[in-house]
Amino acid sequence: MINRLAIIGVGLIGGSLALALKAAGQVGTVVGAGRDENNLKLAESLGIIDVWATDVAEAVKDADVVVLAVPMGAYAKVLREISPVLKAGAIVTDVGSTKQHAVEQASKYLLAGINFVAAHPLAGTEKSGAGAAFKELYQNHICILTPEKATDEQALIKIQEMWQYVGANVIQMGAEEHDALLASVSHLPHLAAFALVNAVNGQKTATFDPFSFAAGGFRDFTRIASSSPVMWRDIAMANRQAMVKQIECFQAELQSMKQALEREDADVLLQQFASAQQARDAWLASKEGENT
Amino acid sequence: MINRLAIIGVGLIGGSLALALKAAGQVGTVVGAGRDENNLKLAESLGIIDVWATDVAEAVKDADVVVLAVPMGAYAKVLREISPVLKAGAIVTDVGSTKQHAVEQASKYLLAGINFVAAHPLAGTEKSGAGAAFKELYQNHICILTPEKATDEQALIKIQEMWQYVGANVIQMGAEEHDALLASVSHLPHLAAFALVNAVNGQKTATFDPFSFAAGGFRDFTRIASSSPVMWRDIAMANRQAMVKQIECFQAELQSMKQALEREDADVLLQQFASAQQARDAWLASKEGENT
Repeated sequence: MINRLAIIGVGLIGGSLALALKAAGQVGTVVGAGRDENNLKLAESLGIIDVWATDVAEAVKDADVVVLAVPMGAYAKVLREISPVLKAGAIVTDVGSTKQHAVEQASKYLLAGINFVAAHPLAGTEKSGAGAAFKELYQNHICILTPEKATDEQALIKIQEMWQYVGANVIQMGAEEHDALLASVSHLPHLAAFALVNAVNGQKTATFDPFSFAAGGFRDFTRIASSSPVMWRDIAMANRQAMVKQIECFQAELQSMKQALEREDADVLLQQFASAQQARDAWLASKEGENT
Repeated sequence: MINRLAIIGVGLIGGSLALALKAAGQVGTVVGAGRDENNLKLAESLGIIDVWATDVAEAVKDADVVVLAVPMGAYAKVLREISPVLKAGAIVTDVGSTKQHAVEQASKYLLAGINFVAAHPLAGTEKSGAGAAFKELYQNHICILTPEKATDEQALIKIQEMWQYVGANVIQMGAEEHDALLASVSHLPHLAAFALVNAVNGQKTATFDPFSFAAGGFRDFTRIASSSPVMWRDIAMANRQAMVKQIECFQAELQSMKQALEREDADVLLQQFASAQQARDAWLASKEGENT
């Protein structure tokens, strides 16, 4: 049970967490903070938050747990502003997509006596804002915690329980391992989707508009290209070493297919396509019944 | 109205066409042909076809219209087998994803007096087989016809009407233009999805399984990697020059993002992501209300 919870950034991720904790009866007062007053008013009217402030320092006063749910490019600014006013023993946690960066920022800006627990729930849609929040978002989804040696054991348990109360399967790993993992299954697909849309868009001329012939496959493949550019800039920058490695890995696969096409090697192409299909179908089968 | 229609390959595409023509009252007898007897029996029991044969030559006898709905790698064999038994004035049409190859094969194997009309309905799902067919598949979808100078005008009108009866928006363009277009909005996304799954799968080790952390974004992005490897080998091979060009175009976008990451150029990254997001959202907005 968290008596006073502050959510900085009441969008899909922060808002859904608040809703789910309320539904589970695991939170007292929820304070929302953010720059967009209309979004905060909407969140209040939807019962996501009880009170709100546009000043983050005001919002976190007396909070037991503070959840950073802002784009990672805003971490430094927010941490700097809240650090002096947090009460001793308060726990700050986040939901960001890269964890080494989060840990670095927290250790740089948070004062002694404040606990930081880095977390990343693997859930979300391409929608954003408080209006997109729903309490079932985390059910049966993985939430990764990346504690450091210095992480307070009680704070870690508290955040672990928070995610379990909203239905997440909590696992722990190192921040570096997390970032390498997410670079491959999440960050790379996003960059690839952005790149693919740009590649197609770059071919548009006055008389040739490839988009007018795009169908369902293109829509699904590029759905994540409708994600927030600012959020993804921050993620890509924060995880850029792992990202570069992943892009190179992907480029090598594309190059290998291109070469098979150039030498008209139908057998190698078939092998490449079939191994991808088998790997994906095996993955889907293993997910059966899960809410992915 | 088509008195006797032969569908070679009674799967999602061929089966849905037959169902829709029957629902529109625009076909008499539908003959199904294919190598898989169980699939043909299923198609018959679902009311997709009235009679069937595993021998394509037998199936097309007396047919007014023959629809090739087999992987493009099988065109040569099927065309060779049906050509001698087709009745004079019969129309052969296809549903394949590359059109220059279809036109070449037809002109190579079909005897004089047989009309060929190349067609490509832009519809489908990653499912296959007669059991996946449904009569609404083509409603509000584009169907591209790529007539040649030699194409018979009456045959062209007949095939155009056939697709209009099942709800498709029929347009015409040159086979070469079609192939360039589809290479960008359809063939490239499929290759990229296969390549992405392979890139991720290639990093799997005994202790590191990226797939176990893949979520919704990965699922959607790679949905088309569950498509038929044989079908996509045939498409990629038949359209390989355009494909190579598209892969190079995509590689250039990826390289540009990689370089922005390497020189820590957050502004260029944001610009790349934002232009992709805007292009995709504009495309989605233009499709509003359409069944894509």
